[in-house]
Amino acid sequence: MSDKIYVFDTTLRDGEQVPGCQLNINEKIMIAQQLDKLGVDIIEAGFPVSSPGDFKAVEAISRAVENATVCGLTRAVKNDIQVAADALKHARRPRIHTGIGASDTHIKYKFNSTREDILQRAVDAVKYARTFVEDVEFYAEDAGRADIEFLARLTEAVISAGATVVNLPDTTGYLLPNQTFDRISYLMNNVPNVDKAVLSMHNHNDLGLATANTIAGVTAGARQVEVTINGIGERAGNTSLEEVAMILKIHKHLGLHTDIRSEMLAPLSQLVSKTMRMPVQANKAIVGRNAFAHSSGIHQDGFLKHAETYEIMTPQEVGVDKSDIILTARSGRHALKHRLELLGYEIEKEDLNDIYDRFLELADEIKEVNDGNLVKLMKELQNI
Amino acid sequence: MSDKIYVFDTTLRDGEQVPGCQLNINEKIMIAQQLDKLGVDIIEAGFPVSSPGDFKAVEAISRAVENATVCGLTRAVKNDIQVAADALKHARRPRIHTGIGASDTHIKYKFNSTREDILQRAVDAVKYARTFVEDVEFYAEDAGRADIEFLARLTEAVISAGATVVNLPDTTGYLLPNQTFDRISYLMNNVPNVDKAVLSMHNHNDLGLATANTIAGVTAGARQVEVTINGIGERAGNTSLEEVAMILKIHKHLGLHTDIRSEMLAPLSQLVSKTMRMPVQANKAIVGRNAFAHSSGIHQDGFLKHAETYEIMTPQEVGVDKSDIILTARSGRHALKHRLELLGYEIEKEDLNDIYDRFLELADEIKEVNDGNLVKLMKELQNI
Repeated sequence: MSDKIYVFDTTLRDGEQVPGCQLNINEKIMIAQQLDKLGVDIIEAGFPVSSPGDFKAVEAISRAVENATVCGLTRAVKNDIQVAADALKHARRPRIHTGIGASDTHIKYKFNSTREDILQRAVDAVKYARTFVEDVEFYAEDAGRADIEFLARLTEAVISAGATVVNLPDTTGYLLPNQTFDRISYLMNNVPNVDKAVLSMHNHNDLGLATANTIAGVTAGARQVEVTINGIGERAGNTSLEEVAMILKIHKHLGLHTDIRSEMLAPLSQLVSKTMRMPVQANKAIVGRNAFAHSSGIHQDGFLKHAETYEIMTPQEVGVDKSDIILTARSGRHALKHRLELLGYEIEKEDLNDIYDRFLELADEIKEVNDGNLVKLMKELQNI
Repeated sequence: MSDKIYVFDTTLRDGEQVPGCQLNINEKIMIAQQLDKLGVDIIEAGFPVSSPGDFKAVEAISRAVENATVCGLTRAVKNDIQVAADALKHARRPRIHTGIGASDTHIKYKFNSTREDILQRAVDAVKYARTFVEDVEFYAEDAGRADIEFLARLTEAVISAGATVVNLPDTTGYLLPNQTFDRISYLMNNVPNVDKAVLSMHNHNDLGLATANTIAGVTAGARQVEVTINGIGERAGNTSLEEVAMILKIHKHLGLHTDIRSEMLAPLSQLVSKTMRMPVQANKAIVGRNAFAHSSGIHQDGFLKHAETYEIMTPQEVGVDKSDIILTARSGRHALKHRLELLGYEIEKEDLNDIYDRFLELADEIKEVNDGNLVKLMKELQNI
């Protein structure tokens, strides 16, 4: 038995608000349709009240998406909710995502308010949203730093008010994974009506721990993950969809799965990177250019003997054609011989040492030796 | 009381073997000197036997580094160890890093060997290395997937043979943080002589969990972390030095600290990125271009009211000048007013709505509104 984890993609909302990432409406529709094909369960399409452009985008995505739920963000403000409901009215499965700050820092400095007032505003917002749609998600902003007993009371209250999902964002990217596990476990054990809703993880990567926190949360009982393609998002970004999907796929003992079609991950990563003008670094997990490249001598040797020695997933699983082997001064004899054979050269054992010495000189000089360099090297050697 | 975590930087070894990252010897010396100033405890300078260039680099770095230990990598092979000792002979504090595969996959497919044979080769290599230097680190390659009882026996044996540090790499980037915690805890509790050496974490980021695993390891008792600047390294890279350093700095309750001078992190990140031709993505934690940028309306409003609302560390702490505010269609009235005031405009309350509407039109059109655009907008408005 494996529990389903719902994938809530916020590439077009939390991702799209990154400086320089803004998309036009046609680009947004195209990405939404690809996310739908990827197997995402919920697409957060925008923040309708924030601008006329965002309103139109949420409206257009609502019409264009075939399977996934389409979601619009609001503050816990009546006008926001009404505008979002309006933007979502053509969605097959609409969801309103409303919420308010839950940590004392947010309550005091952002709202100049009190816990009791915030609780009431949260309940009112959820009830109001439910007058428009069946599916209402509530976010307790800065839940990561909120008083845990207050957070439990707030969660209980919004579920009673009709929230179908309660999102517990670590807004500042502050938590350690074991803290996340403990906090979600506390809510699972101390919110009496917690079985009436789904708890959702929304992590930020300020300390490089977003993915680990999200996994800790689902291990403790959360059943929705809020993620973006390539982990884009404000500041250091959100949890990467591709990392969470592959962790749950590889670590089957967790008993959790998503409906993500993993072989679409690399192509969709490239589409988002290009359209949003956000380059993915070469060493990005799963989708970086080097994610499946092996260059060191020790590793190449092991890899050529048995791919499983150095690979826990195949490049094909995530839609990348093949593991690359690139030769450098760290490459060993075995890797050089293998590459030369792929290029059509038969290497006699007694010649390999000489070829390898020449190869090392070349590699020290030009650093990275590609197939063209190898062919040239072999021609020089054969002419001597 | 806070325990010191030793920072072992492998930017110049595991980082430098990345395709396209290769450095010349002067660049290596420059980076090693900066790492020394940063407060790194051990600098892994290369793999001396792998090529004449690597040998020379380790030799030159050994002469150039003033404070840190300088380390050279070897396989568990006599010639490797002898060559490394030779390359390190001018180091003030030399360390030889030797080791062999420890998982059954590696033992069978890479070495075509048995556990008993591997154990013997490990012990022999450590003893041989100790004939050259006092400080010998042993790596149990693919420790992440090794049988835990065998790993405990191997750890005990190499400590008895004289290893001062035992490195337990998750070579394939496979482990979940709770698994890492359990495995390191097992070794801390089941290796009788574990107090005679330091256990070291060496994680890879294939699933986006390198930092979380490294933190899990030190929480369980490891006292050395093997990291690289910007997390560069084979495939999806190694654990990021900057992430680990800032987590331990921010989460003081862990009772652990490093000697890293955090205000050097951003400048050194840029130096390594530029010299190694490895761009850092904008949303990279701590050192990405956007790591301290706030653009959404909700966040800007909170941030302007009280920086702590959205920031768990200051940009100054990591050597970045200031948090950037960039305006988009998601920016609220408060953020617009603040920016305009910084630009010298006094905004009357009754004018703000009109200015904001014009700003939203502009932002929907050009996506990102910079100071120049704002000045132009205000001129147009004032001329009407």
